[in-house]
Amino acid sequence: MKSVFLIFLATSFSVNVFSQNEDSIAFRKIFDEIMLNGEAYDLLHDLCKGVGHRLSGSPQADMAVRWGEAEMKAAGFDKVWLQEVMVPHWERGQKEYGELLGHGQFDILALGGSIATPQGGLTAEVVEVSDFEEMKKLGADFIKGKIVFFNHIFPQNVIGGFDGYGEAGPYRWYGPEEASKMGAIASITRSVSSAYDEFPHTGTTSFRRGGEPIPCVAISTMGAEELSAALKKDPKAKFRMLLNCKKFPDVKSYNVIGEITGSEFPNEIIVVGGHLDSWDVGEGAHDDGAGCVQSMEVIRTLKALNMKPKRTIRCILFMNEENGNMGGKTYGAYAVNSKTEKHIAALESDAGGFSPRGISIDSAFQYNSKALNTIRPLFLTYGVYDFSVGHGGTDIGPMAEAGTLLFGLRPDSQRYMDLHHTANDTFDKVNKRELHMGASVMAMYCWWLSENGVE
Amino acid sequence: MKSVFLIFLATSFSVNVFSQNEDSIAFRKIFDEIMLNGEAYDLLHDLCKGVGHRLSGSPQADMAVRWGEAEMKAAGFDKVWLQEVMVPHWERGQKEYGELLGHGQFDILALGGSIATPQGGLTAEVVEVSDFEEMKKLGADFIKGKIVFFNHIFPQNVIGGFDGYGEAGPYRWYGPEEASKMGAIASITRSVSSAYDEFPHTGTTSFRRGGEPIPCVAISTMGAEELSAALKKDPKAKFRMLLNCKKFPDVKSYNVIGEITGSEFPNEIIVVGGHLDSWDVGEGAHDDGAGCVQSMEVIRTLKALNMKPKRTIRCILFMNEENGNMGGKTYGAYAVNSKTEKHIAALESDAGGFSPRGISIDSAFQYNSKALNTIRPLFLTYGVYDFSVGHGGTDIGPMAEAGTLLFGLRPDSQRYMDLHHTANDTFDKVNKRELHMGASVMAMYCWWLSENGVE
Repeated sequence: MKSVFLIFLATSFSVNVFSQNEDSIAFRKIFDEIMLNGEAYDLLHDLCKGVGHRLSGSPQADMAVRWGEAEMKAAGFDKVWLQEVMVPHWERGQKEYGELLGHGQFDILALGGSIATPQGGLTAEVVEVSDFEEMKKLGADFIKGKIVFFNHIFPQNVIGGFDGYGEAGPYRWYGPEEASKMGAIASITRSVSSAYDEFPHTGTTSFRRGGEPIPCVAISTMGAEELSAALKKDPKAKFRMLLNCKKFPDVKSYNVIGEITGSEFPNEIIVVGGHLDSWDVGEGAHDDGAGCVQSMEVIRTLKALNMKPKRTIRCILFMNEENGNMGGKTYGAYAVNSKTEKHIAALESDAGGFSPRGISIDSAFQYNSKALNTIRPLFLTYGVYDFSVGHGGTDIGPMAEAGTLLFGLRPDSQRYMDLHHTANDTFDKVNKRELHMGASVMAMYCWWLSENGVE
Repeated sequence: MKSVFLIFLATSFSVNVFSQNEDSIAFRKIFDEIMLNGEAYDLLHDLCKGVGHRLSGSPQADMAVRWGEAEMKAAGFDKVWLQEVMVPHWERGQKEYGELLGHGQFDILALGGSIATPQGGLTAEVVEVSDFEEMKKLGADFIKGKIVFFNHIFPQNVIGGFDGYGEAGPYRWYGPEEASKMGAIASITRSVSSAYDEFPHTGTTSFRRGGEPIPCVAISTMGAEELSAALKKDPKAKFRMLLNCKKFPDVKSYNVIGEITGSEFPNEIIVVGGHLDSWDVGEGAHDDGAGCVQSMEVIRTLKALNMKPKRTIRCILFMNEENGNMGGKTYGAYAVNSKTEKHIAALESDAGGFSPRGISIDSAFQYNSKALNTIRPLFLTYGVYDFSVGHGGTDIGPMAEAGTLLFGLRPDSQRYMDLHHTANDTFDKVNKRELHMGASVMAMYCWWLSENGVE
């Protein structure tokens, strides 16, 4: 018995080593192709400069859909199609004006979904608070009829940029609504930003907890310091705010989808994607043009190398991540309901086009130590070491219900929250080698999942 | 016996865990101080904008020395002094002109140490080669009297930027001399750059293998493509080159040195440093202003936190790394000859102010698995995972002879070779969080060495 067991061990070991060697050779081919001939960077240039920012419902979002479809066809994807998605349509309007009377103008940027001010604007005293607790202590009587200014400082002593987003984000996500519940007539949020500069950061805010919508804006971190200093000198100074944002009826848009069809298990699907929409400032370069072009590069590369994956790898450019996630929800519903296709895994890139450092695991795959022990050394060669539990991606989130294993590309996160949702998120902030390294890691990871499965 | 052994094991385990906990608490204090109150970024701004580039022997190098000394004193270092260093003095001159006759001007940048052309310039046919082998095949008869154009493409399929430098670097380091030996009267090197842009990269070249010095320049990667295309159309076209670089007698300069003196073993020295000189273009922001201000931050932080290291931590801003390493050699000779001080370790930061990913180990410390096994998990918390063998630093290199263990900060390397030795290496390319993360890792590492020793 003992010798049989040893033979079994030896065989299983050699099979394992053999497949690891095969994977490592495939990885190197993928890496070389993308680093030497990759097109993601040039595609990103086209998207950022040819289309520009592209909020759901905007003409640019339509252009981006047509662009994505055309590029996938040009790259020879096996199939390319559009999936209809109904998306919200909100417009910032032409007027955004902020002024602390007697102290000069402030550069304000409406939060996504903000309502307009009354036509002539609104004017009120400002209550500065550093957090929710301070606001609650001041009480509704004090806050009623005023503008709440959330001057919450981004915690720089976080190790990753997203950790700071988690802490300061609430002052944008539901700060306005909490202020509204206390009787505030508008709110100003210090930008959720790791940078100290003049760029205000927009982003979605919600009124779902019973607060009446109020006009709400962001100001830059420098602007916040200036506003705070002015209010210290002159606490009764009034702020004048003018916004003419508007919400329109939902409109039809699309997820852009293309794939390389699996040679053995065509109905087992591995999704790779990012989101095509962006906020209506800057160029949506890191958020999330990068994720789109990296996902397209995965398929282009396998086609260029004539590598035929056993399972289908499907690239999805999701529409409407920023203010509704209707693309993610629509595709997720398809994945849940499909009788013919099983979505085994999904990998999203929506954390910037920076140097890849790991893969976030947002699923039961975290317990698959056999797979992880195989994967880790393969990726460590490429400086990718961090396979820990974390967020997969907003767009792929709804696929969890289909039993899909969720993963997120984890790039270096130090610069992302400097640029996020600003006019400064432009093509020149993306480094070609970093973008292509990320695309390489995504292609390798999809290939590995396709060849080895996820059981 | 067994139970005694177990008690021994348990004790040694708990001591180890206790010291790890102490280290991890110290690391967190250091990290918080630097990320929240760090001054490295502001110091770098002063150095880049107030002093600018600072080649050895230039007035700016003198200014930088005075700046470093004054800042160390202002930060309350225990001791601050200057160490005299004789350095080379080469000047680029005012005239740099390149033109392919009939095809227009090319932006050229003399390599560091290049001789001048004859006063009226030189004009000759161009021989393009992609590597040394191709040049040798063409033979001396063919090359004699011509200008050799090394159009060697940076290998983008490297995992780290420095791997590409290792491969393409020789065409700058000794390409001109090899061309000279074949009878060339001048040389043009395609910039050793990971970027495709209009910035030529300078850097030192040497004539130490018996070749006569010739005028030698770099052109940008875009320029190289244009020159190559023009030569394909018109192989006999002549290139006109005008340089008036000049070498002057050596001049006196200084290493700037400051320390926090050890409380228990003041004569055991841990050096932390970067180099103060830079090439004579751009602002020397990543190369190596970053390393200087990070090293200064190490001492400032320990003073601010009132953390008293057991061993002396000495910050050195080395002069003349770029074209002679006289600062490194001079300090190294001191370390070797000192009868009173033992230099146990040195950590250099000269690979850019990007996100830290590891520490290069350039010494027998690689075999100290006990120490490494203790260090690794402590640093992994901060996203620093790579403690592998590699280059420590040019400045600290000569200390090897003193038995000093050499280490190098290993930042993300994807962007460095885009900027290296160019007019584009400016302050705005440095990200504050990344710079301060690097400084944090350096301070933690020095602290760990100081408290635990290196045996």
